[in-house]
Amino acid sequence: MKLIMAVIQDKDSAILSDELVEANIRATKLPSTGGFLRSGNTTFMIGVEDERVEEVLAIIKANCESREQFMAAPVSIDATLESTLAYPMEVLVGGATVFVLPIESFHRF
Amino acid sequence: MKLIMAVIQDKDSAILSDELVEANIRATKLPSTGGFLRSGNTTFMIGVEDERVEEVLAIIKANCESREQFMAAPVSIDATLESTLAYPMEVLVGGATVFVLPIESFHRF
Amino acid sequence: MKLIMAVIQDKDSAILSDELVEANIRATKLPSTGGFLRSGNTTFMIGVEDERVEEVLAIIKANCESREQFMAAPVSIDATLESTLAYPMEVLVGGATVFVLPIESFHRF
Ligand code: NI
Ligand code: NI
Ligand code: NI
Repeated sequence: MKLIMAVIQDKDSAILSDELVEANIRATKLPSTGGFLRSGNTTFMIGVEDERVEEVLAIIKANCESREQFMAAPVSIDATLESTLAYPMEVLVGGATVFVLPIESFHRF
Repeated sequence: MKLIMAVIQDKDSAILSDELVEANIRATKLPSTGGFLRSGNTTFMIGVEDERVEEVLAIIKANCESREQFMAAPVSIDATLESTLAYPMEVLVGGATVFVLPIESFHRF
Repeated sequence: MKLIMAVIQDKDSAILSDELVEANIRATKLPSTGGFLRSGNTTFMIGVEDERVEEVLAIIKANCESREQFMAAPVSIDATLESTLAYPMEVLVGGATVFVLPIESFHRF
């Protein structure tokens, strides 16, 4: 058994939860901030058998990996123009920082 | 020294805190959700000497173990009846998921 | 690589964050309560290479160590006096409880 602590962005939290449930893997979520990722993140605490660690890592990677995404850039209002335009910019979203910890013992009561 | 991470239901949090204080064991509480238990849970982080691990596990088990409890079932309002009845149903409450982690070193400043 | 879990008082959280950033060390912050310290604390989760553990411990000690501080004591209003005086009292503030945990593996996606 291992304890996986995964810090991911809030925006990827719902999809990761769903995919872990689908794989019949239980996780506890802790709200967290700053640090490994830009603020607004969630720490998943996942207890899993040794032989399923790679599977969990693959699920995290598939759903939370850092990637570029086109977003409408905020355009400051310019009084000399009749309308303002929001043009798309490529930004980096997502990302996961994952620690796999050894466990001395595991108990369910 | 070991670090015990215990996920328990919110409803058992106050009694567990009290019993740990009584045993002179310090714990930090982290709000958490979902996963191991139905939502609304708390993660206790407990640092304890090796020889007291069993004692802490026994305190967690005694106060948080999953058990059946009679609760008034929600009864939907039925216009054809003069009054609605809430009749008791047996539901599962409580439960604890506990990880005992090894520690490289412990420091208090 | 090690995972450092440090429980510190909220009032020391901003300075510790700043000093870790200055040292180019990333940390995730989890809101926590009670236990090791009087309520209102923050748990820092810091992943760091083995050779930098002592450095992180020194930063935590330097910024969060338990210390005495003079604070204006709350003075109850006494109708027989024209004015109430807040006189300084020495109180204990700060403090850190730190666990250094071994890691099986570390991943960034
Ligand atoms: Ni799916
Ligand atoms: Ni008691
Ligand atoms: Ni500085």
